Amino acid sequence: MGGGSVDHETGQSAYQLGSLIAARGWILLNGGRDAGVMAASAKGARENGGVTVGILPDETTRGASPFIQIPILTGMGNARNCINVLSSHVVVACAGGTGTISEIALALKSGRPVILLNFKVQEMFQRYLNAGELFTVQTPKEVIAQIETLFPQK
Amino acid sequence: MGGGSVDHETGQSAYQLGSLIAARGWILLNGGRDAGVMAASAKGARENGGVTVGILPDETTRGASPFIQIPILTGMGNARNCINVLSSHVVVACAGGTGTISEIALALKSGRPVILLNFKVQEMFQRYLNAGELFTVQTPKEVIAQIETLFPQK
Amino acid sequence: MGGGSVDHETGQSAYQLGSLIAARGWILLNGGRDAGVMAASAKGARENGGVTVGILPDETTRGASPFIQIPILTGMGNARNCINVLSSHVVVACAGGTGTISEIALALKSGRPVILLNFKVQEMFQRYLNAGELFTVQTPKEVIAQIETLFPQK
Amino acid sequence: MGGGSVDHETGQSAYQLGSLIAARGWILLNGGRDAGVMAASAKGARENGGVTVGILPDETTRGASPFIQIPILTGMGNARNCINVLSSHVVVACAGGTGTISEIALALKSGRPVILLNFKVQEMFQRYLNAGELFTVQTPKEVIAQIETLFPQK
Repeated sequence: MGGGSVDHETGQSAYQLGSLIAARGWILLNGGRDAGVMAASAKGARENGGVTVGILPDETTRGASPFIQIPILTGMGNARNCINVLSSHVVVACAGGTGTISEIALALKSGRPVILLNFKVQEMFQRYLNAGELFTVQTPKEVIAQIETLFPQK
Repeated sequence: MGGGSVDHETGQSAYQLGSLIAARGWILLNGGRDAGVMAASAKGARENGGVTVGILPDETTRGASPFIQIPILTGMGNARNCINVLSSHVVVACAGGTGTISEIALALKSGRPVILLNFKVQEMFQRYLNAGELFTVQTPKEVIAQIETLFPQK
Repeated sequence: MGGGSVDHETGQSAYQLGSLIAARGWILLNGGRDAGVMAASAKGARENGGVTVGILPDETTRGASPFIQIPILTGMGNARNCINVLSSHVVVACAGGTGTISEIALALKSGRPVILLNFKVQEMFQRYLNAGELFTVQTPKEVIAQIETLFPQK
Repeated sequence: MGGGSVDHETGQSAYQLGSLIAARGWILLNGGRDAGVMAASAKGARENGGVTVGILPDETTRGASPFIQIPILTGMGNARNCINVLSSHVVVACAGGTGTISEIALALKSGRPVILLNFKVQEMFQRYLNAGELFTVQTPKEVIAQIETLFPQK
């Protein structure tokens, strides 16, 4: 997850994260739009042979990233953020705005672990940091290492 | 789409349809539950190398068919029927009950073509039959032929 | 519930139904748009002192009937039809199209009784007619009588 | 909006806020459950003659506050948080957890002004504080004054 409008560095980081997810054979799921972290991570995954699923806010694929292989059209606007987090084994939050914050909050509420990749909003969720449900990392590689710690069987 | 509780013949027909969809390289998307037409069509597709997506009503994968490769958890109950039809290029309705009828109605409302496979509810939707947006067929093979007529490029 | 584009007689019937609902002190809930059965029934209720709730498909009140006192904005398109029926003690379906049929189907699936007011789609739902969960009537007054039979305490 | 499990002081504050909203003739809308800020504010409003609307997560009224006059049943779990904020002219956030934070984020994203009543999460939303779309106050009376500044016509 992450912002629809992000700086160059965040975009590069999202691209690298997508490529690492693909290399592990995991499925990348995000909000599917052709913008920011969504587009960059989908591109990174697809260009490295990964499977990409996009949970889109609209009733058509207009505005979807061309790197989304399986577009799910919800027609539900921001309510689709709940589907994003429920459908994920783990949520990685890159830098973003209010949409990303809502996804972090909903993920924690729904019991999905959250990894913050250079997105400094952890103070608001201190309880989850302490409980080992929220993690902060600095690089895409650390994201992968954290996921492998969380899901050792996979 | 189709009922969660169906007779043997409908189940066999759904299985065959799933296998034919997989053979074409298309993606099978349905309601994802481990019951009736959903389970049979997903099994048919997976056992023939297809990709299966399930739009589930609950917040967990409990009750999902093991033949669903990509489970999307909505936590939205029957409201997920809208997502099923919006996300489909074409809706095939096998015999079912009120859930399936709601999906036929929503698909036609949203401009998705609908193919009824031995599900005789067309009288209610006469206008769409006349407009060439609703079709009735008797066999899974006829479903595939109808889809190929609708989407000649694919 | 009922169509967004209906003939004069259906509109008059919806208006009368709204006025009778208001006279009983019941709350009228519908899809809220400024069209067809929704607008007519809301007008009938409000002009007779009733409370009207509209479950709207969009994120703003644009397109809402001015006779809706309490607009609920879902931003969920047709998925809001599920909310309409879940939130109703009983669903009255006036003549309509696919949207109305989806609401009838979803209401029956969710265990809400349905009264068809001059909307001849009962054949598709024969099982519910037999089970006493679906009813057919010809006039708004008969709707009220049927509701009073269903909910004798109220 | 606010937590389902809150301390005595927050509950008292929510009750007072509900009573003040009722006194102004405004409609109180919240998540509708019989817990925390939802229950306290609904009680405050109803005991002072106000209208209360609850957007509930489930398919039945089980767990709803008895002080909710108009229960809207969504069956959509946390996705109903989007409806809460879209349907509100202004969102008042009392102290809460992740659910409340998701509502603040979604409200700001959707252009609804947010007033934080003793809920110190504003650092995360600094941009909205600067833009005059997010406000911080200490008492229910200040909430009312802030709303009257935002909506001078009412």
